[in-house]
Amino acid sequence: MTPESIWEDIVNIRSQAPLVHNITNYVVMNTTANALLAIGASPVMAHAIEEVDEMVSLASALVLNIGTLSSRWIEAMLKAGIAANEKGVPVVLDPVGAGATSLRTETAHKILMEIGPGIIRGNASEIFALASAEGVTKGVDSTMSTESALEAARELAAERNCTVSVSGATDVVINRDQIIRIRNGHPMMTRVTGLGCTATALTGAFAAVDSSLFDAAAHAAAVMGIAGEIAAEKAAGPGTLQLHLLDILSTLTLDQIGGHLSIDADET
Amino acid sequence: MTPESIWEDIVNIRSQAPLVHNITNYVVMNTTANALLAIGASPVMAHAIEEVDEMVSLASALVLNIGTLSSRWIEAMLKAGIAANEKGVPVVLDPVGAGATSLRTETAHKILMEIGPGIIRGNASEIFALASAEGVTKGVDSTMSTESALEAARELAAERNCTVSVSGATDVVINRDQIIRIRNGHPMMTRVTGLGCTATALTGAFAAVDSSLFDAAAHAAAVMGIAGEIAAEKAAGPGTLQLHLLDILSTLTLDQIGGHLSIDADET
Amino acid sequence: MTPESIWEDIVNIRSQAPLVHNITNYVVMNTTANALLAIGASPVMAHAIEEVDEMVSLASALVLNIGTLSSRWIEAMLKAGIAANEKGVPVVLDPVGAGATSLRTETAHKILMEIGPGIIRGNASEIFALASAEGVTKGVDSTMSTESALEAARELAAERNCTVSVSGATDVVINRDQIIRIRNGHPMMTRVTGLGCTATALTGAFAAVDSSLFDAAAHAAAVMGIAGEIAAEKAAGPGTLQLHLLDILSTLTLDQIGGHLSIDADET
Repeated sequence: MTPESIWEDIVNIRSQAPLVHNITNYVVMNTTANALLAIGASPVMAHAIEEVDEMVSLASALVLNIGTLSSRWIEAMLKAGIAANEKGVPVVLDPVGAGATSLRTETAHKILMEIGPGIIRGNASEIFALASAEGVTKGVDSTMSTESALEAARELAAERNCTVSVSGATDVVINRDQIIRIRNGHPMMTRVTGLGCTATALTGAFAAVDSSLFDAAAHAAAVMGIAGEIAAEKAAGPGTLQLHLLDILSTLTLDQIGGHLSIDADET
Repeated sequence: MTPESIWEDIVNIRSQAPLVHNITNYVVMNTTANALLAIGASPVMAHAIEEVDEMVSLASALVLNIGTLSSRWIEAMLKAGIAANEKGVPVVLDPVGAGATSLRTETAHKILMEIGPGIIRGNASEIFALASAEGVTKGVDSTMSTESALEAARELAAERNCTVSVSGATDVVINRDQIIRIRNGHPMMTRVTGLGCTATALTGAFAAVDSSLFDAAAHAAAVMGIAGEIAAEKAAGPGTLQLHLLDILSTLTLDQIGGHLSIDADET
Repeated sequence: MTPESIWEDIVNIRSQAPLVHNITNYVVMNTTANALLAIGASPVMAHAIEEVDEMVSLASALVLNIGTLSSRWIEAMLKAGIAANEKGVPVVLDPVGAGATSLRTETAHKILMEIGPGIIRGNASEIFALASAEGVTKGVDSTMSTESALEAARELAAERNCTVSVSGATDVVINRDQIIRIRNGHPMMTRVTGLGCTATALTGAFAAVDSSLFDAAAHAAAVMGIAGEIAAEKAAGPGTLQLHLLDILSTLTLDQIGGHLSIDADET
């Protein structure tokens, strides 16, 4: 990952405005749609069982986020995911709250088994829970460090042959062959609801234009962290942070990326 | 339409605080409620089949927006619409995503047939789809110019004897007898989710106080465009645009309207 | 209530980050989650009948808000409330729109009867409706002064042995033994959707750390009013008010509380 490789994806998102189909939670629908528009993508939210397969066939990526589940939405996610697989549309899963309740853990597992998302993006607790390791999550915040979930992420990536993107003070993106640590972001970001979900939605936008899902996940994590830290410099608190973040996503330049990107990369 | 006629409606909205009942999509519930409050109306969101008829009987306008459909919500929209018709409450339809999936196109048509909304407000693709002309929508953004949908809008307005409000770089409001083009607004507005839905919600507020639905639709489109362009002057991107827009809706003056309004009017 | 007693709760919220489980309306999910994060709590939104009891067992408070009801959500609220009672988790009810439709009035009553929330927080019309007195609500805004609902609140608090928190130009918090009037806040706050719901969510955070539900309700009302009036000084309208409010909740100091708190207290 280089500033230039990130930039290439952003240029493509801005010029192609890929349709990203989201079946996501109520809390973040507005803010993730705005983040997708800000980066240059075209968001659509559609969850009716009657239309999800038709909608996903128009899309360049599918984002499944289990933050506010109910049985009908689970059915819709599975149906959309299967249609996405048939059409070759990349699927990104955010297992929000996996580990906190059985419904969430089981639903995330079911999506893993039946859909096989190309990218799983969550916090350390969620990844830990998903990897069937011991894990207790407190709500949907990560109370576990990213490093402590690293082995879980590595196993999950290997077993499912997918990319796992773990967000935290340091983000880690890992697949069978590669790992990258991204040290961007700002602590104030944890005080805004749904910035993890926003990272997931942006991952969908990058997956829509980048043939490498590993690169897409890493680029999205880097852009989220960089935009967040630039926004935090201008923010007086979490309210203004959210806004500046959208402004910055929409105006981000290669120079800003080059000036802020902070990564460690090595082979697994 | 003159600055004074727009202003008269705003004064009435601010003094009467009409209740606008919205059955709308999850993405924009918060932002459209805020826009209605900012202009001076009283928003309520209620979708339970058990209460929509009772709620609409308290309301001065009903807004139906199909942006995140499911079967129960469709039933509720139909029930509320029928109750609104019985009570003489004006109905505004936003056919979000009509043309993108069969469910959306069919639901919008069903609402047209069974309710007969007084105002239909959508982007060019949606109006095109609704008019049964050829049309491909990409998500819920307009990728078609307003003018190219003009004939569709004209037919739809004539056939359904309603007002059709088509948003785009230029907005067009049309009914059997009149047409007006509104050249306000700013391109940055397309990077904020739900500003079309916000225009629809505001149309409900204007329809609540103006006996002419054509004037209500035109006034709402003008106010949305004017507030958007004033907000864009102060905004650093789509995040801050959204906020300034709400501030400006709440403080808009006759002078600001007079200074910005840009229209072409002629008879059809 | 003193600035110091409010401050003690805030310090505890910030250090303990209590999990507040919300089953709330779609309109305010994002903004109340953000307010809870800003004050230092950990919000979770979960409404599936399959998981609400498991989720509430992890929580330190449960907030039930009936702003956008449907039958499944009512079932989930009752199930969560019963589980909360069994676990000793405090329950806060916001009877949004009680009095406007039978569904809302009956659901609020049902929650009162079957759950017995420790705190009821609403506007004057809602409290009036709940107390079975005469009451007509216009949407979800209060059109009735707080004082006029005082007797209703007193009766309700006595009959249900709970704390009733009535918001308005002056907030009143009352139980069988105590009453306090809080004169903080700003009129512009009525132009932002869901600030009543935000006060309810914050009440949940205070109830999570304060063994006195009366004090928790009073502290939350005071913090909401104080943060709102500080935010209003910096705001150009309701859009910016919402943001500054979040910023201020996250940075509020004992000095700010001491400088703004305006209360009348006496025995009932």
